[in-house]
Amino acid sequence: MTGARRSRRDVVRAATAGGVGVAMAAVGAAPARAKSTGATEPTEATAAAQAAGSPADRPHGLLAAVLLYDGFTALDAVGPYEVLCRLPGLTVTTVAERTGPIRTDTGELGLVADRRIADVRHADILIIPGGGNRGTVATMNNAAVQAWVRRVHERTRWTATVCTGSLILGAGGLLRGLPATTYWASREYLERELGAVYTPGRFVEAGRIITAAGVSAGIDMGLHLAARLAGEDVARALQLGVEYDPHPPFDSGSPEKAGPDIQRLALELIDAAAV
Amino acid sequence: MTGARRSRRDVVRAATAGGVGVAMAAVGAAPARAKSTGATEPTEATAAAQAAGSPADRPHGLLAAVLLYDGFTALDAVGPYEVLCRLPGLTVTTVAERTGPIRTDTGELGLVADRRIADVRHADILIIPGGGNRGTVATMNNAAVQAWVRRVHERTRWTATVCTGSLILGAGGLLRGLPATTYWASREYLERELGAVYTPGRFVEAGRIITAAGVSAGIDMGLHLAARLAGEDVARALQLGVEYDPHPPFDSGSPEKAGPDIQRLALELIDAAAV
Repeated sequence: MTGARRSRRDVVRAATAGGVGVAMAAVGAAPARAKSTGATEPTEATAAAQAAGSPADRPHGLLAAVLLYDGFTALDAVGPYEVLCRLPGLTVTTVAERTGPIRTDTGELGLVADRRIADVRHADILIIPGGGNRGTVATMNNAAVQAWVRRVHERTRWTATVCTGSLILGAGGLLRGLPATTYWASREYLERELGAVYTPGRFVEAGRIITAAGVSAGIDMGLHLAARLAGEDVARALQLGVEYDPHPPFDSGSPEKAGPDIQRLALELIDAAAV
Repeated sequence: MTGARRSRRDVVRAATAGGVGVAMAAVGAAPARAKSTGATEPTEATAAAQAAGSPADRPHGLLAAVLLYDGFTALDAVGPYEVLCRLPGLTVTTVAERTGPIRTDTGELGLVADRRIADVRHADILIIPGGGNRGTVATMNNAAVQAWVRRVHERTRWTATVCTGSLILGAGGLLRGLPATTYWASREYLERELGAVYTPGRFVEAGRIITAAGVSAGIDMGLHLAARLAGEDVARALQLGVEYDPHPPFDSGSPEKAGPDIQRLALELIDAAAV
C-alpha cells in the first residue's frame, strides 16, 4: 500500500447529481463557482456553474465578507467561514484594511486578507470576528474600519458577529437597545458601554443583526444563518459537511458551568498567550 | 459613547494572578511566551515569562506543528490550534513545504505557513488536518511530506489527525492494524486501503496517535489532547476560553443522524465548492 498512488475518486465518496441546483434556487442565486474534482462526471449544477464563469460574472451570487484585523481570534472567523463557504450561491472573502497576512491574538497564526476594505463597497453578509483585548479595542477605535462597517452594514442582508466582534459592531452605536450577546467575559461591557441588552444563547437575532457568543459559537451561528439563507436542508447538509456532532470531553464551556476557579484560570491563560 | 476611546482594561475582564504557574508546572514546562496586555499589573507567570525570552530560548517549551498543504480544510487546522495555542508551555506553529500563504479546499481562504518542513526537524505534537479530495490525495502522494511526517512522528509525544488527515498519516502505513477514525465519507477507504480499524467516536486514541472524525471534531480532540498534556483543569479552562458549549440548531452532524438524502446533498455541496 505504501507508495501506491492514490486515486482521487475514492478518498471521499463521490457526490451524486441533483441536489445542488435545488439548493441554489433556495438561496435565490444562480449556480456559483463550482469546479468539481471528485465526481465521476460533472453534476448538472457544476456544468452550469462552469458555463457561468467566475463569481464576479454572476450577479445573483451573494458575497459574505469576513473582516480580519491584527489580533483577531482565528476560530471566530474560520468557524462561520467553514460552515458558509459551501452554501450554494455564496462566495466568502476575507477583508481587512490592507491585503496580506493578518496575525491572530496569540501571534502564532496568520490568515490572509484577500481584499481591502476600500475595494469592498458592498457585502450581502458581513461577518465580524472577535479578538483579544488589544485587537478588539484597536478595531473599536479604528475610524476607517468603523466607517466601513457602518457603511456596509446599511445594505447587508445579515450582519453577524462572533465573540467580541459584537463590541466592534456596537462601538458605532449599532447595538444600542438591541438584544445581543458577546464573549462571556465581555457581557458587562456590552451592556454598560454599548447599551445593548445582554441576552443568553449561542446567538441572538435582532432584526438583520445576529450576534454570537464566544469563539466556537460562530459555528452554531453559522448554521443558523445558513438556514436563514438557504433553508433547513442545506443547513443540515452543511452541518454534516463539517461533521458537527459535538461531544466535548468536559462540560466547562460556559462561565456558569465552569465556575469561578476555571473562569479565573481561563482569563489567565488568555492573558498569558496574548501578544 | 460613539467616538469615545475605549480603554484596554475593561473590554475583557482582567486576569488575576496565580493559576498560570501551576498550570505550566503540570505540562512540565518552564513558563512560555507571555506578553500580557489585559491585566492591570503583570501576573507572576507573565513576569517570569518575560524574563525567559522567546520560545527558542526555553528548552522546556513544547512545540506543536500544524501541517498545512494546498487544499486543506481550514477548520481542521484552526480548531485544534485555537484550543491548544493557550496551553501553558506550548507553542503552536504552522508548517508546510514552503512558507507563505496556503489556500484551502474551497480556494476562498488562505492561512500562512510560518515554517518549512525542511526547517522543522522535531515537534512534540504533530497535527495533520484533513482536506478536500484533491489536497488529501496530493499529500498522500507527496514523497517529501510523507517522509517528513514519518520522521517527525518517530519522536512526537502525540501525533494527531483531523478528518482525512488520518489518511495522510495512514498513507505511510502508520495506521495499519490500529483503531482510528476519519471523515465520515472516508471510513471505508480508511479500512480498505490503509488497513486501520474504523472506530466510532469524535476521536480515537491508539498509543500516541489520536485520530479525529471530520472537521469540527478537531475541537473535541484538541480538548482531550490538552487534558493529556496539562491535566483536566487546564483543558476545562481552554474549553471556557473558546466558550465551547455547543448547541447546534440542527441534529445532522453525523451520517447516521443526517440520513441518506442529507448525506447526498452534503457530498454535492462539498464537490461543488471544491477547487
